[in-house]
Amino acid sequence: MIQTPYILFLGDAVDPLTAKVAQGIRDWRPENVAGQIRMEGCQADMRIPDMTLAQARAAGAKTVVIGVANRGGEISQSWRKILIEALEEGFDLASGLHSLLRDEPDLAYAARMNGRKLHDVRVPGMRYPVANGIKRRGKRCLAVGTDCSVGKMYTALAMDAEMRARGLKSTFRATGQTGILITGSGVPLDAVVADFMAGAVEWLTPDNDDDHWDMIEGQGSLFHVSYSGVTLALIHGGQPDALILCDEPTRAHMRGLPGYRPPGLELLRDTALVLARVANPACQVVGISVNTQHLNDDQALEHMSAVETWMGLPAVDPFRQGAGRLVDALMAV
Amino acid sequence: MIQTPYILFLGDAVDPLTAKVAQGIRDWRPENVAGQIRMEGCQADMRIPDMTLAQARAAGAKTVVIGVANRGGEISQSWRKILIEALEEGFDLASGLHSLLRDEPDLAYAARMNGRKLHDVRVPGMRYPVANGIKRRGKRCLAVGTDCSVGKMYTALAMDAEMRARGLKSTFRATGQTGILITGSGVPLDAVVADFMAGAVEWLTPDNDDDHWDMIEGQGSLFHVSYSGVTLALIHGGQPDALILCDEPTRAHMRGLPGYRPPGLELLRDTALVLARVANPACQVVGISVNTQHLNDDQALEHMSAVETWMGLPAVDPFRQGAGRLVDALMAV
Repeated sequence: MIQTPYILFLGDAVDPLTAKVAQGIRDWRPENVAGQIRMEGCQADMRIPDMTLAQARAAGAKTVVIGVANRGGEISQSWRKILIEALEEGFDLASGLHSLLRDEPDLAYAARMNGRKLHDVRVPGMRYPVANGIKRRGKRCLAVGTDCSVGKMYTALAMDAEMRARGLKSTFRATGQTGILITGSGVPLDAVVADFMAGAVEWLTPDNDDDHWDMIEGQGSLFHVSYSGVTLALIHGGQPDALILCDEPTRAHMRGLPGYRPPGLELLRDTALVLARVANPACQVVGISVNTQHLNDDQALEHMSAVETWMGLPAVDPFRQGAGRLVDALMAV
Repeated sequence: MIQTPYILFLGDAVDPLTAKVAQGIRDWRPENVAGQIRMEGCQADMRIPDMTLAQARAAGAKTVVIGVANRGGEISQSWRKILIEALEEGFDLASGLHSLLRDEPDLAYAARMNGRKLHDVRVPGMRYPVANGIKRRGKRCLAVGTDCSVGKMYTALAMDAEMRARGLKSTFRATGQTGILITGSGVPLDAVVADFMAGAVEWLTPDNDDDHWDMIEGQGSLFHVSYSGVTLALIHGGQPDALILCDEPTRAHMRGLPGYRPPGLELLRDTALVLARVANPACQVVGISVNTQHLNDDQALEHMSAVETWMGLPAVDPFRQGAGRLVDALMAV
């Protein structure tokens, strides 16, 4: 567990896109954020109070979260002074960067000397068990995609927010770096050793109230040859009662795999259902989340209407339209 | 690469079954084995020359392979004296046990002092790349099972042996501890980090002659919730041209998963093919390997004949009947 509230470190972000971790935290857990720290020349802005470390401390912040990624996922030399100061002033640090905080001797030393924690959320924090497949109480919903990076995390977060707004019991379960930083806990599934992947998902989504839903962040795709094993471990470890199919309809080829075309939604539905029903025979596909960012309004509405007709399921872009209809469909299960 | 020839260490094996690693090496790579070392009370016997370490050295042996597993996969206290002697006399050690040789201070020290290698084949020896999905030259065959431990390794080894006996180009590609010790190399796939599983399989089965076949050792099952992710990584990383379905028809539930019934062969065929054709659209299911160890001769023949009729594919128990008909089917692809 990473301690909140956070102070978001945007460093010298070269553009707003590189601060997408900070953006995710600000959008989905604003209550966890005290403010932002920006260095000179920073081109990102979360529109929350700019603070010094001292001001952040006075505001109760506990952890400096690196909310920006530079090229290569390195811990930038220009950030060091302020990160070491943060440790000296009593903050923990959290990062989802490829380079680990713990591997930087100066940061590791400062953390040890000041009794602070370095949270590298790319690295599993524990040994997970082998999955046992035993049926758990409570309900689970998993977003599965035609490809990587089609909006699975966004969909799960949007549905979770909608459910909590309605007073329903829901917990977003993070399985990737950004999700873990947003919520402060989770499993970095792509870094777990093969034998324990499904067990890690079981651990992440334990027994719960009968009317509680875990909204599980999906990873990869059954049809993405680089990461499909992670996806199947999520399907089998998660024992989902409900699947949401996620698609980005303009993609010419699978992410990072020229020559591989994304599957159709019917094929994703049929394949995912067969596999999901191994772990949970009652599993159903309840809706479709369409990422229409590359379509204009008319195109988006036309596309979703067509999908809805042909698939016989609600098709929604939660970014444009909210997740209400997906939650309605989930509640009808 | 583990250096051959081996001397097989059977220790104080309490029964022949606990020496199944040694048995596998003796059965499949007898040319790699100089002899066996048995301690007092050893209840296993590979029917190869008993040797002292000095005799093994004189016979040219390079590596002492721990061919026995005791309860818990520990390195037995009673083995230590001889293992340290072996290092002092110039042998490397190789083990697939759960407990690692390198974690034993006395063995690690003796190895370092004598410049010898400790091969813990459960641990990946390198960092594997992320899979790129690029089509490779040469052909690949993968055994996929209705369950774990139904004979996938045996099937691949038997087909590889038959192909080489016919003068065809074939390489068995090991993906588990026993297979790696048998051949001296491979990938311990269940110990690889999730993101790199499929990439490890690509690395293991590289470009090759157009008429060369990799016979890839399968792991887990698409229908085994604990390990299915490993299986899918094999299917996508392996880009198989041919699948062999493996079944053990008397199993009441999936291994280690009471309440989970093994899938039918049709469902395995259809599910595996859809997924395999993502990476290799030409993939075909060419035959069925039936593990009939729990059936008598009549039952076995009757069962295989029925499977053959209903699936329209050759159904063979390679242990009883040899792998000839499976290789015939493969060559007809």
